[in-house]
Amino acid sequence: MFDLDSYLKSQKERINHALESLLKTADKPDRILEAMTYSLMAGGKRIRPVLCLAAAEAVGGNTEEAVPAACALEMVHTYSLIHDDLPAMDDDALRRGRPTCHVAFDEATAILAGDALLTLAFQTLSAIGLSNDERTEKWMQVIQLISYAAGYCGMIQGQMLDISSEGRPSTLDELKSMHRLKTGALIEASLISGAVLGGLNSDRISLLESYAQNIGLAFQVADDILNVEGDPEIMGKAVGTDRLRHKNTYPSLLGLEKSKDFSRELVENALQALETFDEKATPLRAIAKYIIERKK
Amino acid sequence: MFDLDSYLKSQKERINHALESLLKTADKPDRILEAMTYSLMAGGKRIRPVLCLAAAEAVGGNTEEAVPAACALEMVHTYSLIHDDLPAMDDDALRRGRPTCHVAFDEATAILAGDALLTLAFQTLSAIGLSNDERTEKWMQVIQLISYAAGYCGMIQGQMLDISSEGRPSTLDELKSMHRLKTGALIEASLISGAVLGGLNSDRISLLESYAQNIGLAFQVADDILNVEGDPEIMGKAVGTDRLRHKNTYPSLLGLEKSKDFSRELVENALQALETFDEKATPLRAIAKYIIERKK
Repeated sequence: MFDLDSYLKSQKERINHALESLLKTADKPDRILEAMTYSLMAGGKRIRPVLCLAAAEAVGGNTEEAVPAACALEMVHTYSLIHDDLPAMDDDALRRGRPTCHVAFDEATAILAGDALLTLAFQTLSAIGLSNDERTEKWMQVIQLISYAAGYCGMIQGQMLDISSEGRPSTLDELKSMHRLKTGALIEASLISGAVLGGLNSDRISLLESYAQNIGLAFQVADDILNVEGDPEIMGKAVGTDRLRHKNTYPSLLGLEKSKDFSRELVENALQALETFDEKATPLRAIAKYIIERKK
Repeated sequence: MFDLDSYLKSQKERINHALESLLKTADKPDRILEAMTYSLMAGGKRIRPVLCLAAAEAVGGNTEEAVPAACALEMVHTYSLIHDDLPAMDDDALRRGRPTCHVAFDEATAILAGDALLTLAFQTLSAIGLSNDERTEKWMQVIQLISYAAGYCGMIQGQMLDISSEGRPSTLDELKSMHRLKTGALIEASLISGAVLGGLNSDRISLLESYAQNIGLAFQVADDILNVEGDPEIMGKAVGTDRLRHKNTYPSLLGLEKSKDFSRELVENALQALETFDEKATPLRAIAKYIIERKK
């Protein structure tokens, strides 16, 4: 019987350990590194790294080789959170139950720490890409996948749509497009990176893409639902904030019950996409279900 | 007789043309792309790209192949200017004679446009790196060089030292270390990237590194001198600002005349490093002299 809790726990420990080693490569500790460490080691769910490793496993690869990609994905994710939280953007003071980076340090340090984490992701990927001649091309593909997903055709465009009053989604389709960019693109890159490093057959890429798109959206719908009915104690952050900010969300556009139906449907589609995968895709299947059952 | 003016002009046009094509790859124009274009095409000197191409030439390589690296370097440089100009950092309203990005657009857009340019650099490098199997490893080296130079062991640490009151340089040695990080690291990466792509012999790397370190510092000393005695009309920006901000500079620590001597000495050292290079290093030699003779 597969135990998701212990799987997530052990993968999270593995990733945290690898992230700590990567941060230690600095020649001397300074304020930027302190801020990078503060945000990177703040106890996130590590969902992108876990998806990356689980995808490498699902295609029959060696998950150990995918660890640097998993770390780079978490660095890119953390950089985006630091910048999104800035006063000029979402102006959030709390993240994962602790003061956000610019509150704990200051705005200039937070901007630079975000920049540094984004850069460190590519430093990490290119260092590993140069360490083994035979795998350089695979790592180049990973750099391409992650930079594209993080860039202005992906995550950055999504954030821009989210904060600009004109571009802000008002229909369900606009909401979906925004999320596909803002969170979906990096989740997809996490899975495909892991699969590429694990030795994916190209005919199965589209199946993993479908899995990724469905769970990416399900993750967002579940987040919106948690913002309505989650427990702030468990979540380590305030709830009801979307409503206060008059943000269009799945619950505000569809209602709470229909949003739940929608998230279940998305998870069904994700599981469907994995039908031809064998038992090595068990973690991916369990993660899909977990996304809508989680309490934080 | 080598004509530096027409050399710089033609290289600048070539780089501007390549940068414009790279910006056009976006699926649809939006505010982020507009801001990226505004800052990237604001008429900078393109000194880093020119150094990259001139280094490829100096080692006997085909400069055309180095153009994507030249573009990536300018994207990284422009991102750093956009973020350095932000209110939380240097709070500058003018850059290259025009309103800075956050003034022309807004702060959130400027943060995201900077992020997007940094990311686009790695997107550009990995795309070209995947387009030719035999050169993938060289491009991976370029990604390593640029990410390291731009990151928290390079440019970002230099900017942090520049803005933090405790870390701010108060002696000549501290000033040199700060500039080695803030501007020197990326200038060195520009030259070494070009040389790697041009097929550099590894025993000559240290010579180009010495050239790079000397002109990098000379460039900064010359900038400080221009801030004292430059013509704001020609420069497109205010002068005397360092003094108003009580910034330690080479003129404030050494005096104006000794600063000029120092910049000439640095250029001499740079030329010395190129002694064993043939006439293909003519542009590099001419650029070294230009750095301290320029009026903007």
